[in-house]
Amino acid sequence: MQNYRLTTDKFIEHAAKWSPQREIVWAEQGIVQNRIGYAAMRDRSNRLSGALKALGLLTGDRVGTLAWNTQHHLEIYYATMSAGFVCHTLNSRFTVAHLAAIVNEAEDRVLAVASSLLSLLRELLPLCPTVEHVILLDGDVNELPILEGSKAQLWLHDTLLETLGAPFVWGEFDEETPAGLCYTSGTTGAPRGVLYSHRSNYLHTLRALQADSIGLTGNDVAMIAVPMFHANGWGLPFATPAVGAKLVLPGRHADGASLATLMRDEGVTFAAGVHTLWLGVIDHVEATGMELPNLKRLLIGGSRCPEALLRRIEQRLGVQLQTSWGMTELSPLGTIAVPGASWSDHHASGRPPMGIDLKLTDAYGTTLASQRNVVGHLKVKGASVLDRYYKSETDALDAEGYFDTGDLASLDDEGNLSICGRSKDLIKSGGEWINPAEIEDIVGRLPAVRLVAVVGRTDRKWGERPVLVVELNAGESFRPDDLLACLQGKVANWWIPDKVVQMESMPLAATGKIDKNRLRMDAAMTDFTAE
Amino acid sequence: MQNYRLTTDKFIEHAAKWSPQREIVWAEQGIVQNRIGYAAMRDRSNRLSGALKALGLLTGDRVGTLAWNTQHHLEIYYATMSAGFVCHTLNSRFTVAHLAAIVNEAEDRVLAVASSLLSLLRELLPLCPTVEHVILLDGDVNELPILEGSKAQLWLHDTLLETLGAPFVWGEFDEETPAGLCYTSGTTGAPRGVLYSHRSNYLHTLRALQADSIGLTGNDVAMIAVPMFHANGWGLPFATPAVGAKLVLPGRHADGASLATLMRDEGVTFAAGVHTLWLGVIDHVEATGMELPNLKRLLIGGSRCPEALLRRIEQRLGVQLQTSWGMTELSPLGTIAVPGASWSDHHASGRPPMGIDLKLTDAYGTTLASQRNVVGHLKVKGASVLDRYYKSETDALDAEGYFDTGDLASLDDEGNLSICGRSKDLIKSGGEWINPAEIEDIVGRLPAVRLVAVVGRTDRKWGERPVLVVELNAGESFRPDDLLACLQGKVANWWIPDKVVQMESMPLAATGKIDKNRLRMDAAMTDFTAE
Repeated sequence: MQNYRLTTDKFIEHAAKWSPQREIVWAEQGIVQNRIGYAAMRDRSNRLSGALKALGLLTGDRVGTLAWNTQHHLEIYYATMSAGFVCHTLNSRFTVAHLAAIVNEAEDRVLAVASSLLSLLRELLPLCPTVEHVILLDGDVNELPILEGSKAQLWLHDTLLETLGAPFVWGEFDEETPAGLCYTSGTTGAPRGVLYSHRSNYLHTLRALQADSIGLTGNDVAMIAVPMFHANGWGLPFATPAVGAKLVLPGRHADGASLATLMRDEGVTFAAGVHTLWLGVIDHVEATGMELPNLKRLLIGGSRCPEALLRRIEQRLGVQLQTSWGMTELSPLGTIAVPGASWSDHHASGRPPMGIDLKLTDAYGTTLASQRNVVGHLKVKGASVLDRYYKSETDALDAEGYFDTGDLASLDDEGNLSICGRSKDLIKSGGEWINPAEIEDIVGRLPAVRLVAVVGRTDRKWGERPVLVVELNAGESFRPDDLLACLQGKVANWWIPDKVVQMESMPLAATGKIDKNRLRMDAAMTDFTAE
Repeated sequence: MQNYRLTTDKFIEHAAKWSPQREIVWAEQGIVQNRIGYAAMRDRSNRLSGALKALGLLTGDRVGTLAWNTQHHLEIYYATMSAGFVCHTLNSRFTVAHLAAIVNEAEDRVLAVASSLLSLLRELLPLCPTVEHVILLDGDVNELPILEGSKAQLWLHDTLLETLGAPFVWGEFDEETPAGLCYTSGTTGAPRGVLYSHRSNYLHTLRALQADSIGLTGNDVAMIAVPMFHANGWGLPFATPAVGAKLVLPGRHADGASLATLMRDEGVTFAAGVHTLWLGVIDHVEATGMELPNLKRLLIGGSRCPEALLRRIEQRLGVQLQTSWGMTELSPLGTIAVPGASWSDHHASGRPPMGIDLKLTDAYGTTLASQRNVVGHLKVKGASVLDRYYKSETDALDAEGYFDTGDLASLDDEGNLSICGRSKDLIKSGGEWINPAEIEDIVGRLPAVRLVAVVGRTDRKWGERPVLVVELNAGESFRPDDLLACLQGKVANWWIPDKVVQMESMPLAATGKIDKNRLRMDAAMTDFTAE
């Protein structure tokens, strides 16, 4: 059969050829900034490839982006990848120190930046000697002086396109060629890079388009509310043009009013994002009486969504929900509930679509004899799954070629996945494992508790013992015994923490997750005062 | 990202792991012969791979099948392909001479045969010296003597499995490894082989599973009514396990009563086949008052389906129809109408899903400036599209890597494809092209006409001139002028044939299509008596 390379330029080419007038709509705060058809956007991206080449970029060179969900960011996606450059999406919520380390490791030669992030850029750029060019995606010429004193040359996106834009023959490289780079921040250590290939992005897209998976159709109007710097925007910047669906990009602001207004005005049928976004949308529609009659389906990823919120979204908006589980290392889709699935188990995140292999092992890597209704270490295999971190010298795979997600998980009778915690958060007490996530889940339901974490603390007798750390809602107080009482009969007695610590403010990592590494260090070094 | 090979064993492995109890149902004449879950069927196929290896098969060796849509045939599919052998499906409707030529070209070492085809086998086997083993898929021991006097060793499928069955590590080869072989008979010349690879089958499956394409889900009950020897049964033996849908295999008989009974009894939601099958089903349900309440969707491929029949199917069965266009050389899916598409144009066969590139060229291979609303030569590109015929020494591709389908086609404003004839049937008269299909379409609507063909005949003045050949319905007669009169005003005057010929019986090729090659030879060699 034909030697037909699986490259991401084919998505926008397909859209340009078969849905040339279908729109990409870019808005800010719910107000449309621009509309462009796929054919016109494809031509702009193609000429932008030529401009990047004129700047001196060579196959494999990295272009960093500090940008929101906009037309110009999408043009950078396709202009870089389709030409064989690497689109390196930077998470603007990382610290400047982390961002500088990432840009330097990636050796980004170009940074494409949203005008709203210029103050971040001003801090970052002096730390990044590899950057030769800065493309201002959406600003105007008055902002040019910001780079005075820097070696980098500043371009306005549209001016660059007008000045140096030229046709470019896309996709003339092997399908294993790198296409994208995205750094993931766990709760510990420095961010690590995941280098996506054209092949992995292409196959991820086909997997996402399965009817039992994300399953977009050409009739959909799809809003990408997950940031485009999070694992390829969950792959939707590829999947949407691949089927010729209308694409709605909400820009920087993800507040309920902005999203709801845009969804109503553009007739959005499908939207994807973390559950807190939909909470904002519901608050807005409830406060204003707004209706979203076109909306049919919401894809929810990221952290686990509380069942009460799921029910509220479903009932208030009258839509189908799809819960899912993924990771940057998986491009990111791992499991997904089918549209309209029953959700008797509110922890479940669906099943793996064709192309994702999962297994559960014990702590030593041995596959569990039973793969159902037992908690194990979750390992994943597939064409869109990481083999090794960017610039790492060792594979992140086990002997059977599976990637260790670091998650603890179980599968129900139907194969639905539930994430049960992080393996590195496990506490080994008297030779047996305590899973902090189960304790946190129970304590976290108390109305007084705002945030909760359980970490291990070295113990002479038991090896480790659990410590319960809480941040309370404003005006609340607690007695340790009251907090611990809720655990009685729900976990084994020896799981119940020995100490309870209240913090004014829980330490958070860049992504907003609780910084357990910091808590563990505190627990190791200090004798907590509260008990 | 991971080196994850796209091999077809992954479909049945996925089904065995995630839908182990979901059933494969095999029936004959509407009566269930066996039910088996995916996990059990996977184990049988895997052990059958071991048995084939024990027979001496090596990677790349061909196993021919002369079989219907049965569990055992499906087991041969997965046992051969997953082990790196080639599943060579033989079309039992070919002549013995063609079959022998095919088996010899393929050098099949094993033939797996349905007991109902033993008389064909008895004729064929003496002509096929490469065949060392015959597997009788569903017969019993009393039929063993049939091979007396032949070198080949005869096995019963289940006995072979019991005797030599052994576990086999599947998929340990490159994804470009051949998986299947299928010969296509055009209307001219000897059948030509299309060698599918694991990669092409895998990518075809993902394309078929897109929501806007065949889009099966795990809740579907899918009946494969298209023969499994036709271009991988349109890929459904892969797509159905890939999503864990229930699979219904109707066996040999495709009459309306057998199919309708099975569809009702097994709760079939989706079925695929040529339109004449559904005509039989409708006749049966109308005659008996049978209801098919579970049926939601019918996929129609093969030759063009008359609009009246489409409407009748849709209204009588209350289902969505999907028309499609494909070829053995395309694995086979080319274009497909989305489920529930309007069909204002009854010729249209939908749009190409992501992964299929189409273009229209002129007769010299130059891409037409406009790709819409004009008839051109249809060329196709994709990962599941032929590059060269089996054992051919030349590529069947143009300079841009497109395969020439040999079809004439047009695309409407929405990109829906209409096949308008075969390019080799075009008649060049006075330097301009005449398309026989347009003339045949008009004449074919006359009630007296049963079959019609227009072929070219050498002409000293014009190069070629069209001849109209008809076979009338029983008891009908015609005057040439009456036939030709219907063309007045509908085609250019110079397109109107100079001669009209009536045949008692139109010559047909093996697939039931009119043998135009034969007609052209007749036209060249004889002066037709009727005029």
